[in-house]
Amino acid sequence: MTHKDNGVTALDLPMVDPLPERTQKFFDICQDKLGLVPNVLKSYAFDIDKLNAFSAFYNDLMLGDSGLTKLEREMIAVAVSSINRCFYCLTAHGAAVRELSGDPKLGEHLVMNWRTAPVTAPQRAMLEFAAKMTTESHAIGEEDRQALRDHGFTDRDIWDIANVAGFYNMSNRVASATDMRPNDEYHASFR
Amino acid sequence: MTHKDNGVTALDLPMVDPLPERTQKFFDICQDKLGLVPNVLKSYAFDIDKLNAFSAFYNDLMLGDSGLTKLEREMIAVAVSSINRCFYCLTAHGAAVRELSGDPKLGEHLVMNWRTAPVTAPQRAMLEFAAKMTTESHAIGEEDRQALRDHGFTDRDIWDIANVAGFYNMSNRVASATDMRPNDEYHASFR
Amino acid sequence: MTHKDNGVTALDLPMVDPLPERTQKFFDICQDKLGLVPNVLKSYAFDIDKLNAFSAFYNDLMLGDSGLTKLEREMIAVAVSSINRCFYCLTAHGAAVRELSGDPKLGEHLVMNWRTAPVTAPQRAMLEFAAKMTTESHAIGEEDRQALRDHGFTDRDIWDIANVAGFYNMSNRVASATDMRPNDEYHASFR
Amino acid sequence: MTHKDNGVTALDLPMVDPLPERTQKFFDICQDKLGLVPNVLKSYAFDIDKLNAFSAFYNDLMLGDSGLTKLEREMIAVAVSSINRCFYCLTAHGAAVRELSGDPKLGEHLVMNWRTAPVTAPQRAMLEFAAKMTTESHAIGEEDRQALRDHGFTDRDIWDIANVAGFYNMSNRVASATDMRPNDEYHASFR
Amino acid sequence: MTHKDNGVTALDLPMVDPLPERTQKFFDICQDKLGLVPNVLKSYAFDIDKLNAFSAFYNDLMLGDSGLTKLEREMIAVAVSSINRCFYCLTAHGAAVRELSGDPKLGEHLVMNWRTAPVTAPQRAMLEFAAKMTTESHAIGEEDRQALRDHGFTDRDIWDIANVAGFYNMSNRVASATDMRPNDEYHASFR
Amino acid sequence: MTHKDNGVTALDLPMVDPLPERTQKFFDICQDKLGLVPNVLKSYAFDIDKLNAFSAFYNDLMLGDSGLTKLEREMIAVAVSSINRCFYCLTAHGAAVRELSGDPKLGEHLVMNWRTAPVTAPQRAMLEFAAKMTTESHAIGEEDRQALRDHGFTDRDIWDIANVAGFYNMSNRVASATDMRPNDEYHASFR
Repeated sequence: MTHKDNGVTALDLPMVDPLPERTQKFFDICQDKLGLVPNVLKSYAFDIDKLNAFSAFYNDLMLGDSGLTKLEREMIAVAVSSINRCFYCLTAHGAAVRELSGDPKLGEHLVMNWRTAPVTAPQRAMLEFAAKMTTESHAIGEEDRQALRDHGFTDRDIWDIANVAGFYNMSNRVASATDMRPNDEYHASFR
Repeated sequence: MTHKDNGVTALDLPMVDPLPERTQKFFDICQDKLGLVPNVLKSYAFDIDKLNAFSAFYNDLMLGDSGLTKLEREMIAVAVSSINRCFYCLTAHGAAVRELSGDPKLGEHLVMNWRTAPVTAPQRAMLEFAAKMTTESHAIGEEDRQALRDHGFTDRDIWDIANVAGFYNMSNRVASATDMRPNDEYHASFR
Repeated sequence: MTHKDNGVTALDLPMVDPLPERTQKFFDICQDKLGLVPNVLKSYAFDIDKLNAFSAFYNDLMLGDSGLTKLEREMIAVAVSSINRCFYCLTAHGAAVRELSGDPKLGEHLVMNWRTAPVTAPQRAMLEFAAKMTTESHAIGEEDRQALRDHGFTDRDIWDIANVAGFYNMSNRVASATDMRPNDEYHASFR
Repeated sequence: MTHKDNGVTALDLPMVDPLPERTQKFFDICQDKLGLVPNVLKSYAFDIDKLNAFSAFYNDLMLGDSGLTKLEREMIAVAVSSINRCFYCLTAHGAAVRELSGDPKLGEHLVMNWRTAPVTAPQRAMLEFAAKMTTESHAIGEEDRQALRDHGFTDRDIWDIANVAGFYNMSNRVASATDMRPNDEYHASFR
Repeated sequence: MTHKDNGVTALDLPMVDPLPERTQKFFDICQDKLGLVPNVLKSYAFDIDKLNAFSAFYNDLMLGDSGLTKLEREMIAVAVSSINRCFYCLTAHGAAVRELSGDPKLGEHLVMNWRTAPVTAPQRAMLEFAAKMTTESHAIGEEDRQALRDHGFTDRDIWDIANVAGFYNMSNRVASATDMRPNDEYHASFR
Repeated sequence: MTHKDNGVTALDLPMVDPLPERTQKFFDICQDKLGLVPNVLKSYAFDIDKLNAFSAFYNDLMLGDSGLTKLEREMIAVAVSSINRCFYCLTAHGAAVRELSGDPKLGEHLVMNWRTAPVTAPQRAMLEFAAKMTTESHAIGEEDRQALRDHGFTDRDIWDIANVAGFYNMSNRVASATDMRPNDEYHASFR
């Protein structure tokens, strides 16, 4: 369980050195705005094409235009990561929920048991859909999509819920498979 | 379970019409080379930014440089999709295994029960890692990564195995959540 | 994983040689009608009493008089075998669904994810009952039987559904336990 | 949960009345030898062909020639039925273990938790194989069969273990699906 | 699997010898009233403080004032122990159900498959709540508590159901972890 | 999900008012030492006998003499509560791990995925035993106890591990069944 050159996973895949100028600028902005460069980005930086593809995909999904608020997308991230028990994602996105909601207790609650957390009825339906996608996606049927529509979600919203939930089912597994470790700074933030 | 305007999912998210020239060209190339435009691409084409981000991510992963052959990446796709019981991905990537291996029976076998399929010992280790990522990623430890190294996989190979297995854990779930349907052409191909 | 004398399982249990006249005739008829002698029959042929008991039981169940069509019985066979991930039975009975339905895509769909396959409402109820029997038979209650009656099934039909679903829960396990391999001919048939 | 005319299942499928002479004789022998006609036989007696096919299959398996003792076959029956939580089979075959072993406590122990019951090492291996067949038959590999051979079981013995374990995975499910009830006489017998 | 000095678990933790007078008196009363000193008490008797704390907790819960009858508390004990497959608790509390109900068959039925046992509708609701607590306590919501209220249970009754079900989820696990063996006398009693 | 008079559970079971002098003193000491009266104690205070029995049992187990340190007992509490996803216990005992270890990150890590947390080899063995007790106690065998002995644990230590793990399998379920909510003060403490 030693962590190698890039400092963030159990794999010996050091970052390109020096980083290309554009990547360095991107990392500098992260440092400026967030106070850290998320370790997940460092983990992909052994191959700049992969880093760029991942970042573009992530940014469109989590920061792009959507009927879901950024907090709601982070709530899905935490609920899915909780089912998959992903240390990296629970740490990073738990902090994001604490920050965006201004409610540290909500962040903790979603990490520990999303089912009993105090969220709105549509948000609960959204998390139930994401949870079913996580544990038995093959059993999803039209009645599950309709339940979301009945709570006011549009088909575009359903697409976004499905894609955010899908994304963390990917990145939870990549993080666990490579023993990716979150930046220490997340732990004490927004408590 | 009616399928809406874009013809490929249960969501009413029609493709941008007309498609931007660059996208149309991409789809024309697909039609030329594969005899079809994969429905998954059509499903993202209601938003060209999303389509581009998805395509770039996919192409880097499945077609880019790697220590894993394209067939091995498709084998992971099928084994993961089999555990998740994803109709879309099993159909499309089952066909890909049949094509790339020249062994229709192998494609069928991986769809039905990857554990008893005749693959090499390293390939079996690779599929076992992908399966553990799929069913209990939180339990992966250094011993699992070491098992891959013992079969000759490099840390970069492990990264690629993890990312391919992770990717299908995403796209299986998006496909099931939206009831994405595979192009009919796959079924009879390479039998 | 070498396959022994009888060519169809991992167990060294060669067929009686020569076969009794009546058995040889039965196998000749199979060859004539089906173009093959199903490997499952060869696997029991190390003991003619066992072969006869199995064949009689199978024939009554799958070919005998019933309110269920032969296709419906094969649909149950495939759905159950899919849950149990039995390579032998999915191959042989997937082919049977393709043949009897004249719809190759339906056969594939049931192999991959029966829950999203396009079947009638009564057929779906029938498959749900068979699936519940497969995964948690102890939880079946009167409400499950009533659900079948509400779709028009008689008590005799329910008996037949239960017995077909039960049978494949047996033969899936025998096939997997002995590594029984399907005849190659099934793979390309009725595509 | 009313029990219908035949008195033994929740389905309205009364026995043929009068029974054919040969069947009546068979039932009379049961009554003489066992002090009861097992309800499972009555449940099939709405159709004499089905009753005969079932009886022939059962008798060959449980009473026919085998390297396994009758007690060992009953031990498998109880362990499998315990995993599937089948009231009928646990009652009837729990009594059989008590009778054949002369050890009432062993019968109880196998019903409640076969894993901690005091059996020989080969018997434990046999029950582990039967249990794996019951819970994840698709994962059985050559190493599981070899483990049985290492305990002295022949390939024919393995066939018999597989078929007995398979059989109760069928009949447990048929019994639960039809709410089959055991004869009251079993409960107090051989305590 | 040898059982050590105290005769009841796989751990070498002999009873305090001689027992303090008060404890000896307690054990004498057990012997008088029950015909045995329950092995679970002997297992804690290596430390009299632990024995006293356990006994006090147990007696308040199972014998103290409650809206639930003693039989109902034992029914919960058996249903929970059945899910956890605890040999000790199924033996001891199965006997208690047989005794308190005067219905040996009911005791057996609850041991084998509580879901199909003939109990009243409120008792079934009570057992369903206890079972959900056992298998997925994190998913319990207000609707589950309300279902109990709808059957006439008070909030105090719900507390008692929760605490009895909780208790056996503890003691089942302690018994299994230490291989605690029930007194032989239970097996034949109240048949 | 309204919380009733006692403020800590979904059940309407107000505390005895006024509290008996001895109980009030106990609560005052809690307030003094911990800065709060743990809500779990308030939840039992509708019945002083129950409160006393619970407190005595808890204090012996978690604060009494043992070969396990208090931190180790809290680590077991968190690992078990994490598997059971208990919001109350993860909050309260997560804080305890942060306090006793002086390592906030360790507390978080155990809440999120105990399997990848940095603990000593004996502690990991201890948590594996507690986890197996939590998910499949019926499968624990002598080899599991021996694994603990091989790490230097005595039989008395094994008893304590089993009883602490057992206890949280009880209290997790009681807390979830009653929707018990942790004191807000825990969330920000020892970060």
